[in-house]
Formats: sequence, C-alpha cells, structure tokens
Amino acid sequence: MVLNALQEQEILNQQKETFQTRRATVPALEEILFDAIPLLDHGFIRVVDYMGDDSAVVQAARVSYGKGTKKVSEDQGLINYLMRHRHSTPFEMCEIKFHVKLPIFVARQWIRHRTANVNEYSARYSIMDKEFYIPRSEHMAAQSKINHQGRGEVLEEARAEKIMQLLKDDALRAYDHYQLMLNETETGDKIDDNEDGLARELARMNLPVNFYTQWYWKIDLHNFMHFLSLRADPHAQYEIRVYAEAMLDVMKKWVPATYQAFMDYRMGAAYLSSKGLSVIQALLAGRNLTREESGMSLREWRELESVLQIKLP
Amino acid sequence: MVLNALQEQEILNQQKETFQTRRATVPALEEILFDAIPLLDHGFIRVVDYMGDDSAVVQAARVSYGKGTKKVSEDQGLINYLMRHRHSTPFEMCEIKFHVKLPIFVARQWIRHRTANVNEYSARYSIMDKEFYIPRSEHMAAQSKINHQGRGEVLEEARAEKIMQLLKDDALRAYDHYQLMLNETETGDKIDDNEDGLARELARMNLPVNFYTQWYWKIDLHNFMHFLSLRADPHAQYEIRVYAEAMLDVMKKWVPATYQAFMDYRMGAAYLSSKGLSVIQALLAGRNLTREESGMSLREWRELESVLQIKLP
Amino acid sequence: MVLNALQEQEILNQQKETFQTRRATVPALEEILFDAIPLLDHGFIRVVDYMGDDSAVVQAARVSYGKGTKKVSEDQGLINYLMRHRHSTPFEMCEIKFHVKLPIFVARQWIRHRTANVNEYSARYSIMDKEFYIPRSEHMAAQSKINHQGRGEVLEEARAEKIMQLLKDDALRAYDHYQLMLNETETGDKIDDNEDGLARELARMNLPVNFYTQWYWKIDLHNFMHFLSLRADPHAQYEIRVYAEAMLDVMKKWVPATYQAFMDYRMGAAYLSSKGLSVIQALLAGRNLTREESGMSLREWRELESVLQIKLP
Amino acid sequence: MVLNALQEQEILNQQKETFQTRRATVPALEEILFDAIPLLDHGFIRVVDYMGDDSAVVQAARVSYGKGTKKVSEDQGLINYLMRHRHSTPFEMCEIKFHVKLPIFVARQWIRHRTANVNEYSARYSIMDKEFYIPRSEHMAAQSKINHQGRGEVLEEARAEKIMQLLKDDALRAYDHYQLMLNETETGDKIDDNEDGLARELARMNLPVNFYTQWYWKIDLHNFMHFLSLRADPHAQYEIRVYAEAMLDVMKKWVPATYQAFMDYRMGAAYLSSKGLSVIQALLAGRNLTREESGMSLREWRELESVLQIKLP
Repeated sequence: MVLNALQEQEILNQQKETFQTRRATVPALEEILFDAIPLLDHGFIRVVDYMGDDSAVVQAARVSYGKGTKKVSEDQGLINYLMRHRHSTPFEMCEIKFHVKLPIFVARQWIRHRTANVNEYSARYSIMDKEFYIPRSEHMAAQSKINHQGRGEVLEEARAEKIMQLLKDDALRAYDHYQLMLNETETGDKIDDNEDGLARELARMNLPVNFYTQWYWKIDLHNFMHFLSLRADPHAQYEIRVYAEAMLDVMKKWVPATYQAFMDYRMGAAYLSSKGLSVIQALLAGRNLTREESGMSLREWRELESVLQIKLP
Repeated sequence: MVLNALQEQEILNQQKETFQTRRATVPALEEILFDAIPLLDHGFIRVVDYMGDDSAVVQAARVSYGKGTKKVSEDQGLINYLMRHRHSTPFEMCEIKFHVKLPIFVARQWIRHRTANVNEYSARYSIMDKEFYIPRSEHMAAQSKINHQGRGEVLEEARAEKIMQLLKDDALRAYDHYQLMLNETETGDKIDDNEDGLARELARMNLPVNFYTQWYWKIDLHNFMHFLSLRADPHAQYEIRVYAEAMLDVMKKWVPATYQAFMDYRMGAAYLSSKGLSVIQALLAGRNLTREESGMSLREWRELESVLQIKLP
Repeated sequence: MVLNALQEQEILNQQKETFQTRRATVPALEEILFDAIPLLDHGFIRVVDYMGDDSAVVQAARVSYGKGTKKVSEDQGLINYLMRHRHSTPFEMCEIKFHVKLPIFVARQWIRHRTANVNEYSARYSIMDKEFYIPRSEHMAAQSKINHQGRGEVLEEARAEKIMQLLKDDALRAYDHYQLMLNETETGDKIDDNEDGLARELARMNLPVNFYTQWYWKIDLHNFMHFLSLRADPHAQYEIRVYAEAMLDVMKKWVPATYQAFMDYRMGAAYLSSKGLSVIQALLAGRNLTREESGMSLREWRELESVLQIKLP
Repeated sequence: MVLNALQEQEILNQQKETFQTRRATVPALEEILFDAIPLLDHGFIRVVDYMGDDSAVVQAARVSYGKGTKKVSEDQGLINYLMRHRHSTPFEMCEIKFHVKLPIFVARQWIRHRTANVNEYSARYSIMDKEFYIPRSEHMAAQSKINHQGRGEVLEEARAEKIMQLLKDDALRAYDHYQLMLNETETGDKIDDNEDGLARELARMNLPVNFYTQWYWKIDLHNFMHFLSLRADPHAQYEIRVYAEAMLDVMKKWVPATYQAFMDYRMGAAYLSSKGLSVIQALLAGRNLTREESGMSLREWRELESVLQIKLP
C-alpha cells in the first residue's frame, strides 16, 4: 500500500484549492501537483511545489526586467547554448520540491547529493511504519562478474523466491521486535502494561535498511539535472534509478525546452578522452590506430567501441 | 533614475498577467511582485518569484501529506520552537528570488554569501550603464576612531560637498573614457569611424566600484535569514544595510510568522559568552563580579553593559 | 573488536614514517595521528590528516605574507574577537580529515552536515563486516516523557538484558541470511556450490541500521565547530555525542587557542531571545516581570530559569 | 613591483623553518611553498599550504587503514577510472591553499566559484595599495565579432598605446583622489591637518576595478579541477586564464597522477551531443549525414568540425 485513506484524503483536499498568482506557472505540472506517483512496492514521489519555468532560465540569463523571453525558437536556442557551454547558473533559478517515500538504503545513496534541502521523517521522534521493500523476482540478480558494483544475471525463480522469503521473514521479525522494544502496538496500546518502552531513537536500530523512510526534498534545476544524470544512468542501482526516471518525466512536463537540451547534450551525450578523440580523428582521416598506439586500456577501448557502435581493430 | 520607460513598461506588462495555481500563494507578496523598490540613488530590489509560505515550513517539519498546518497559534509555536533550537532545515523549504541593482562595491560584499544562486549582468558581453553611486552628504562620515572597519562622525557639509564633486567628476570621466575605448556612443554609434573598439571585457576595467551592476539573486529562507542577520546589523556598511532592511520588509509580507520568530530569537536576541553568563548569574544572586574576576576584556565588558543596559562595577 | 591485526599493522607502518615539511605542524596532533580512538563497542575515530593550526587562522584574517602571528596573547585576542563576532571565514582556512567507524543510524544523522567531504565504504562493491552496535545496559533508556525526541529513565536491568538479547539475535540472524544470500562464507568460500550469490547491492538490504559502516570524513574548522556545537550538545543522541566529544578532545590538541574561544563563546554560551533579555534587564533594574508580561511560553520560561540558574517568579 | 622588501623577507623567514610530520608530503611542492609566482604586472599566486597527495585519493577511494596504495601503475589506473567515471568524492580529500594577488575585475569572476574558502584583504579596514593592472599592448584586443563575450584582433600599436595612457592616467588620478578623501599620504601623514579623513569603506568606491586586491583562497582538489577546467579554457578571459595556467603547473607538481588523468579525461576531452555522436557514427559506417539531417545548428556544426579536425559535407 502506497497511501492510506487518510493520506489520500489530505492530498485530495489540497488539490481542490486554487489561487491567483502572477508567478510563472506551468499548467502541465499543476495537473499532477501533489499526486503520489507510485514506485517500487510502497514508495512514491510527489511534486509539492515548484518555482520558475523555461522562461525563468532565459530571464535570468538575460537579467531582464520583464519576461525576457523572445520567440520560442530563440529561447530554445539560448537554452541549448547554455547547456552546451556549461553555463549552469541560469538553471539554478528554477526550483522544485518533492515528497519522496523510499527505502533507507536508497535514501543513503540519494543523500550524498549535498546541494539540496532535506527534511526527513524522524525515527527519534516518531514510530516507523511497517513497510519494507522486497524486490520482485525479475530484479533478483547475481553479483556482476564484470562490474564490481553492479548486478549480472537474474537468479533462477526458485532461488529468487527463497531469498524473497528470507527478506520478508527477517523484516517482519525485526518489526515485531521493534514493537516489543517500544512496548507499543500499531494502535498505540501498551503490549505489557508493566513495562516502559525503549526510546524510539534506540529501538529503530533493529530495522533493516529496506524499511521505508520519507522526506521532503528540494533542489534547483541545475543540481536536479546533475542528480538525474548520475541516477538515471545505467550504472546506478535499479532501486534509485526508478526514482530518477520518474523524475525525468516530471522534468519533461515542468521545463520542456530544458528537458530537450538536457537529453541532447547530457543524457545522450558522449564524453571522449583526448586519447579516444585521437582514435576517431585518425579513423576519419583514413588511418587505423591500434589500441597500443592509442595508449588506452582494454576497458577504455571497449567503452569507445560501444560509444561509436563499431568494432575497432 | 532607477528605471527607464522601457523597463517600467516591461514590469507593468508582467504584472498584468495572472494565472491559476495550486501552489502556496501569499497575497501580500503578490501585491508587490515585480515592483522596483528604490534604494540609494539608482538601485532597487524587486521580488521576481517565490516558493512557499509559513505553512511550507510547518509542512516540511511534519513531513506531511497535506497542508500539515494546524491552528495558527500551534503553527507559530512550532516555528518559534524551530527557530529557538536552530532546526534550520524546514526554513530551507521556502525560496525567494530578487532582481537587484546595486553598486559594485556592495555586490562584492554581498557575493560572499555563497549559499545563493546568482546571475549577474555581464560586462564582458554587454555595455555598462552610466550610473554610479554618490552618497548623500549625511552619509559622508569620517573613519571611526573606535571601530577599525566603520564610520564615525559625519563630515562637515563643505568637505562632504567637495568629496561628492570629486567622486562625480571621476566617475563621469571614467565613463567617458570607457566609451572612448569602446569607440561607441550611448546610441551605439562609432565615435571614430576608423578605429576598432576595445573589447568590452577590457574597457570595463576603467570603471570605479561605485558603478551599478545588477543581478538575479535566489536564496532559501534559512540562508536569507542568515544574510539578513549579518547585513541588517548595525556593523554592516550602510550601503548594503539599506538593501537588507528593505528585504526585511519583504520578508514580513512573505512569511509573517517566521518573521516574528526571527525578530524575537535572532535580530533582537543576545549572545552571551560563558563569562558574560557568569557575571549575570552572580548579579542575580546578589554578588558583584569585577571585570578582572570575570576574565573578560575591557571591550567585552562594555559590550555586556550595552546588552544589559546597566553600568557594571 | 575495533581493529584486526592486519589493520593494526597497517596503522603502525604508517606511523613509523616521518617527513620534512615547511607547513604549519602541530606536534600534539602528530602524536596521535593515525591512532584509532575506540568508541562504542566497535567504532573509532582516527585523525588521518590535517592542514593548518591556530596561526593559520590569524594569518588568513590578516591576509599576511609571512606567518602573520604576533604575541600569543594578541593572537588569542584576535581569535576571540573573530569567534565573538561570527567572522567565520578565517576558521575555514584549517582542515581536518578523519577515518570513522560508526553504526549506520549514526552515519544517517552525521551525513546531514553537508559542508564536508565524505568517502564511505561501499556495500555495493564490498561485503559488510559482521559488526553491529549493542548498547550497554546503562544506555538502555525509555522514551522521554518531556522531550519527544530523546531518552528518559534507564530501563530496569532485566528488561535491558532482554532487549540486548533481542537486538543481538536479530543482528546475528540478519548477517547469517546476508551470507546465505551472497552465498559466501567469511573466508570467501561458496556456501552452496550450485548457486549464484545475490548481488551485494541487494543482499545488504537485510542488515539493520546498527551495523557498522566506515568513512573518510574531511571538514574545515568552521564547519567542524558547527558540527560539534550541535552534536556534542546534550540534545544530541548519545551514540553520536560520544563521537563529537572525542573530536572535541582532538580539537583541543590541534588548535588550542581556537578551542578556548569555542568553549567560551559557543559551547558555554547562552542565546537569549529579545523577551528573555527584557526579563533580565528588568530583574537587574530591580523589577520583576511575570511570565505573562514577558510574553514567553512556559517552556521558554523554564529554559530561561535553567540558563540563569534562578527560580523566576 | 610584485613584492616589497618587507614582504620578501617575511616569505624568506617562513621558508627557512622546517618541521617533522607524519602527514603525506610532496617534496616537489615543498620546494615552491610560499614562493610568489609573478602574474600580470603586479599579481602573483603563492601556495601557502596543502593537504594530501595522489595517494590520499587512492586511500579515500579504498577507505583504507594504512596508505592504501599499491603499485604505481595500479594507483594511476584507479585514478584514471575515478576521473573517467566522475567519481568525484575521492578527489575532495586533498586540499590546497593559495595567497593570490589579482585585479578586482578578475576577483569578481573568480569568486563565482562558491565551493572554496576565501579571506580577502578588507578595504573597509585597510588602505588599498597604489597598484593597478595595465594590459600590455599585445593583449589590447578589439571586441570579437563572432564571440559576444570575447576578444578579437589585437589593436594597432598606436591605438593600444593611447588606451594604455588613458587607463594609467585615470587610475593614478583615482588613487590621488582616494588619498585626498582619506586625507592621508602613503606614509600615513595627514594631507590637511584641519580635516577628517573620509571612512575607508567610502573612499575606496572611487577606485576602478583594475586595482589589485588579494586573498587567501583554499579549495579541494575536485573543485580545483572544476575551476581549472573553466578558467584555463580558451573561452576564459585572458587575465584570469594566466592565473589558472600557473595553477595547472602547481597541480602537476602536487598530484602528478591526478594531473595526468585530468589532462587526458577533462582538459583534452571532447563532449559530444547525441546529435554530434550520430554524425560520427554515420561517418564511421560510411554514410554522410548533412547538417539538416543531423538537426544541428550551424554553430554546433562548426564546433564539431573543429573537434574532429575535418571538413564536414
């Protein structure tokens, strides 16, 4: 369950109200404002506020008195130029705020992005919910044999099922014991009337990192793109990548021109080392460079083949 | 002149448009949105966008699904609590964006606040306007004899006038020569048809730091308060203080509950060292501590007298 | 066990080597460089590098060509002045780097301090050690009845023992299952020769947040003091406070003059609201202000009593 | 004049002292420690402190107990890998501190890099020196006709000389008037015994932005490389580029393996958009893509030609 009835009602109540504003407003984003977009088995992202739109980027780049926008094509051209030449400050002029529910181990990767504002649900102050992440069997993969920090082949169904059961049993037992230590049932009643509950800040230490936490997370558009470029990348762990991919969709609604430039010049772009560039220049000039001549490692050589979609000599 | 006719028109055009939004909206701030609030002789601040209100602070502190607000008094109580106990992250959930026109020497102090986003008018790309700051005679003060980095007595009228004239003449001559080097009049015509203009990035080096620049400046509420606490302070240079004070008024319209807490717990607060505290504890217990016993320097002793509004022994 | 034999040897080897340098050097800190200072049941901090000393603060404040230091008393006076007036930038000129081993739930609080550099042991890349934190019975406290996010009375011995056993059993079982999922024993052998191991990034999700992680953590002196002021504070959770307190001792060896100023003007200081200040001013002027007249909440009133060490009317 | 006799003596005094340390030490950097490397007509950079070396990067990436280094080739391989895959945090574990003397307009560009620590000489507190930057005639260039924020052709000698004279006269007059306003000669005597001096914070507003200021500037290796990649770039203004290029030389002495990786994977690298990549893939597959088919703008097309060093159809 992603939301309980009370939470759904609170969201609906907030969606009903509208106000008049002179601020830059994005109808496509307003439409999904406050909606919980479900992710993994119990997680979600919800856009809860935003500031600025594509024209705010243009406006700041031009330090303009009014809207600062010109023809759509000129604005797109300027945005492309800014993206291509790494003029990042105009993109810092837009801001977005999410409410996110996510497993603790995902939160631990996520928080490494320091240029963001965060308010997390406090397990010192409040009691954690009985919600934890169990991967679906198609995501139960073996350790990769080539990438030291990634996944390889999907496990056999039977083995995957067995692991899922282990994870589930351990999470349930951990939560039972959490309640025992707190001496409190889900309805807030004491389990043993004669005992005190252990402090919340201590009892929570029994919960595994697949339990869900939640936070408000606010970031500017430039740093948001940096986050997405790292976390919507195939090297990112699947469980954080699904969040980044859902956020990419949000970005497309919010700032379509910036999104376009981001996909062309960042997500779909290739970064060539001086050695890699020499190999290409040689090829285009009709010469073949061997790997030895190029000075590249075997790993880099394979990466270059994959970027160029050719088989190198 | 703070704005020319074209700039005024652009602002008016933008103020005419309104949109529907589900986002937190502050009518008192909407009213002054885009307005240029004049400061010094040619400067201004304009609020050009904002995100969140007092309830966004409360909402983030509670990591809530809906508005998260309760009774006004409870919300004020929570905000006071957060301010008093330095829980700064919920205040980072609000954001404000200004367009600011300010003398370069003020900009140089201002930019030291690193936790903000800035897009400045580029003197490499564009030609600087012929606008510079000349202090009014009542602000023409001598070097302070007690504070090594501040002002003391106001100068005599005649001396002040003489200095104003010097400043004005030098600024005008510097700008004339700037145009000569650029080889370009204010209307964009060449001054000498047979000459090339010096690159803008070089010609600008002749302009003194009292010339006006401008920028878009965006900051979250927590860091905004930090900026205000340092720059609306009597130790700040007058020319930056007027900007901070105008921003304090904006803050009062934007987030009145946070403003209230900020004035009580930050701007009007006193910070006592352990030694200062010992002096007060002794006094309240009916004992007098001498300065020597307290271990305080003469300067600290005077500061303490001023905070307590008494004459210490 | 805090360190294994191999780790101890690596540390000893590094301690044996010394080099010549012209850089500011602090003999008292050199003496403990690389040492593991044990904390909690398996944790530690180790200073692994540092930059600057008290004189580097003075040097930067004076933007000097040489050492920039004068008499010891003048330097202490300048450092006191900087601390008192919140001139924070000179303190940013010193830097310290720690290797820290700490439970995950402590790491989660710690990482909220964003102005630091961190490299954490990767559970995607490597296998986690079988080490977890179990509080000693004297730290097994009930939820506080007055502070919503703290501890109250220590639990009865029998109840504490029972909880310790629960925590221990769950941690051991979680780790056993972690190994089962990885299909790997501690010596790196396969448990079941016919099975693939689950990817490390997935298997780790079964481990509770009392397991130990470790990281390299580097911070400048200004932000270090900010961290210490929040985490060596009685409101901080005990398990992070022990780290902060050990770091305070390190700071005393490293920058004794700054440490002195920090204790006087920050750790031992009191922060009075404008209302609290009015109460004191009235008391010192021989008048009594009631709580109602002061406008303070009951909670603030009690806090003021505690700061002043008197009973207010 | 870059340094006066007193400053030179202070530097020499500091260079004479050496200490024993267990910290990572770089002999090649120790050799130039505190030296003023002259830049432009009166500027310099001086390395005044540093923390870490190449092995500190490796050590942090491995979260190791001892040195963490292996064979030189393995360490270089790991550093290359980190650089190529944008694993930036291990590079944040090294830190360097400079004393820099630079024209104000250069300082204004420089300070935009926010992730650094700065202490600047205060013109509120102290009197500015009579030192300003005058470009050499070979750097006196016209506004570029293709790049809106750069330089084009060098001006004719006669025109350059005339401009140099204008700049010099204005700077000298501005400084004379600065002293008049301060009512103080270079030796600290009053100019007019019957007058008060204008406050320093006001008088300085008459000085143009080619006057020299100075600061202590400290930054970690990751952000240092970001600074260098933007400021040692041909698009950067010449006057800041000379500082960045001198710092590149410093970096080579300090962290040679990281320097090597930086030159291969950053400075000499090319960044290809998805469109640019398609063009190359087509060419290598023996097909020609026209600019129209590629969807690239004329400007991008020219940029791609320049990267590939070929003439595209």
